[in-house]
Amino acid sequence: MPDRSILHDERGPHEPPGPGTPGFRAPFPTAGLPTVAEARQRILAAAGRPPLQVEELPLAEALGRVLAKPVYAPEDVPGFHRSTVDGYAVRSQDLRGIQPDRPARLQVVGRVLVGRPADVRVEAGQAVAVPTGGMLPPGADCVVMFEHTSREGPWLLVHRFAGPGDNVIARGEDAVAGLALLAPGRRLGPADLGALAGAGITRVAVAREPRVALLLTGDEVVPPGRSPGPGQIRDINGVALAAALRQDGARPLEPVYVPDEPAAFRQALRDALAAADLVLISGGSSVGERDLTAELAAELESPGVILHGVALKPGKPTLFAMAGRTPVFGLPGNPVSALVVYRLLVRPVIFRWLGLEESPGPGPRIRARLETPLRRPPGREEYVPVALIWRGGEYGARPQPRKSGLITALTGAQGLVHLPLEVEGLPAGAEVEVIPW
Amino acid sequence: MPDRSILHDERGPHEPPGPGTPGFRAPFPTAGLPTVAEARQRILAAAGRPPLQVEELPLAEALGRVLAKPVYAPEDVPGFHRSTVDGYAVRSQDLRGIQPDRPARLQVVGRVLVGRPADVRVEAGQAVAVPTGGMLPPGADCVVMFEHTSREGPWLLVHRFAGPGDNVIARGEDAVAGLALLAPGRRLGPADLGALAGAGITRVAVAREPRVALLLTGDEVVPPGRSPGPGQIRDINGVALAAALRQDGARPLEPVYVPDEPAAFRQALRDALAAADLVLISGGSSVGERDLTAELAAELESPGVILHGVALKPGKPTLFAMAGRTPVFGLPGNPVSALVVYRLLVRPVIFRWLGLEESPGPGPRIRARLETPLRRPPGREEYVPVALIWRGGEYGARPQPRKSGLITALTGAQGLVHLPLEVEGLPAGAEVEVIPW
Repeated sequence: MPDRSILHDERGPHEPPGPGTPGFRAPFPTAGLPTVAEARQRILAAAGRPPLQVEELPLAEALGRVLAKPVYAPEDVPGFHRSTVDGYAVRSQDLRGIQPDRPARLQVVGRVLVGRPADVRVEAGQAVAVPTGGMLPPGADCVVMFEHTSREGPWLLVHRFAGPGDNVIARGEDAVAGLALLAPGRRLGPADLGALAGAGITRVAVAREPRVALLLTGDEVVPPGRSPGPGQIRDINGVALAAALRQDGARPLEPVYVPDEPAAFRQALRDALAAADLVLISGGSSVGERDLTAELAAELESPGVILHGVALKPGKPTLFAMAGRTPVFGLPGNPVSALVVYRLLVRPVIFRWLGLEESPGPGPRIRARLETPLRRPPGREEYVPVALIWRGGEYGARPQPRKSGLITALTGAQGLVHLPLEVEGLPAGAEVEVIPW
Repeated sequence: MPDRSILHDERGPHEPPGPGTPGFRAPFPTAGLPTVAEARQRILAAAGRPPLQVEELPLAEALGRVLAKPVYAPEDVPGFHRSTVDGYAVRSQDLRGIQPDRPARLQVVGRVLVGRPADVRVEAGQAVAVPTGGMLPPGADCVVMFEHTSREGPWLLVHRFAGPGDNVIARGEDAVAGLALLAPGRRLGPADLGALAGAGITRVAVAREPRVALLLTGDEVVPPGRSPGPGQIRDINGVALAAALRQDGARPLEPVYVPDEPAAFRQALRDALAAADLVLISGGSSVGERDLTAELAAELESPGVILHGVALKPGKPTLFAMAGRTPVFGLPGNPVSALVVYRLLVRPVIFRWLGLEESPGPGPRIRARLETPLRRPPGREEYVPVALIWRGGEYGARPQPRKSGLITALTGAQGLVHLPLEVEGLPAGAEVEVIPW
């Protein structure tokens, strides 16, 4: 435990205030910070539910997009009474009284071809051959399966009773014209697109992808493709956050690299607010850079800063503000932290912006056995990146070294283990439900 | 149980052989069919491991693509000894003998700015202020946290010992030049792309998307955008399978709608084999259409048909052939069946073609409680589409009506429950692990 008596906020002679200042001060306090659930609730309440912006797309381009309006069946599906088996269309009343030793005896008067109108009428005592998917001919009210028939000279013998409607999908039984097929707020998958095509729908109204501005701060950070000079490092967060946004259905704007200089930062933020539906600022890792983000966030249009700090590891210094109607996040500079906070707090806003119906349950998990013990930090819930190793029968979850470098921490983890506040720690061998990364 | 004594294979006067014939015959036998696992094994063995086709992409376009070559760190990361805290760079030997009442007393001789070279040297008895991410100045071998220091007039008092390397990431500690960062066969996610960017990599070699031809058969099936005539229905499978292929990283070619006419079908198949890496034929639902697929598959270049029929519900009539080196699947016409077979048997081949490292474990699952009992059909394992309903604390899994129409079956399911051969059925209330749909 650090000795609190030695914490202080003075700035020494080599740390004048201003750009580039390390800005030494007491570490960010943990006490009184909102939990992740509280933070999420405050963020969503402040962000509100903006009017959905909609675009219309052909089905082939709508995979993964979120439906913006309910879809109704424009026509009956199927458009005709349709056989579900290979067999014979008959009148059910002709099958009454069938016994194992006393089949019904019918006359076959024609056949239906698949994809063609049924142009033969079934009268009493008659049958018409129908393939799977074929139209039920007029006069018939059911289909007997081929396997339940035999031939005797010119006669068709039917050995099993079939009631009205048996082995038939009635016109409109799958979807009657006007039926609501899909509710808005659903992310469209292959089965949905197939169903819409089958119902005669070729274009759908989907939520426009929210545009997200990415401001990357930190004087030490150079954009991809530029060579870092002495003391500089390459950006990770611009690329990682842009990919996470694309994966979730948002449209990241070209990342902007901002020096730790108030005027330039202020201008970049103004441009971002003008261009985007949502702004993500990825902080540098030093307190000075975090201070600058907080300072500029305090200048934002009302209501401004909503929260600063979350009882979460990693991700404590997270900042959230509303600049008028535009959500602004200040994310930690550490890429693992930035991706964890993105997932826990930013993604819900993206989903809200997309009109995605919030799924109330936890969703898919990977059951695994913890390989080394975990201890939760005091006062904060924690999300621990873990590697998953299949051990023939079950997964092992191996916590990634916490201090470790950024690159290896990013490539080594396949999921996250959650240590909630009510759990002090987990022993090696504990069964955990891993959140896919 | 159907009475097998009445099964027969004769064709009646109204069912002449030839195009459009219902082609009545005994239903596809179940006995002796391979299980899904056996079928998958035979399919993968026959498909082999084709030489990977590679393309090079900028990182921003590589999300979701499969890495085709190992990636090595081209340079040390970080490129310099880097502080992980806000504090003071010092020589560890100057901190020896620190006691609670006897701090080390050092002279602060300068500061490092983040992103800039450290141009002050730390001599014995000296300290240099360093921000998080700043370069360790020459002479220093560790950093003491700001919180463990205080000021006394011109002196910096250090209250805690730090050993060599403490609070520092050494040059190359994250990734040393030449280190293998990522192995081939990995699908690139946001964290991977961030890590690659951080290591100075801007382009990656990824597997080319396999081209997949889609042949949609069935005289009753009309392509999307065309109005069905009497007895006709709209296509579902072309749209659904194309979307599933895109989702998995393959490139579906424009679906081709093929009449149940041998010459046209043969030509379409020839064209598909010339254009694609893999061919999917979605059968019509009648036995006649299935027969035509089987007949043409028998004509394929050696080794030809590998299997016809799988002990699976839905999906029993699945066909798999190799036309020379090109895999050809005959999928059931029912869209739910086609998507289930796609997932169980086609996707593994797509993944193999992509060079995707096969994940040995089951992957993410959704734990749920079955709402109605399930009985497995005799002799076949079954995959049952279920709707998932969050009941506050747990999911309910509601099996979708089996007979039901196609549209509602497709839009209603969020997952699949597996009934393996060793399980006869499951009672209502049973805990199940649902495979996300």
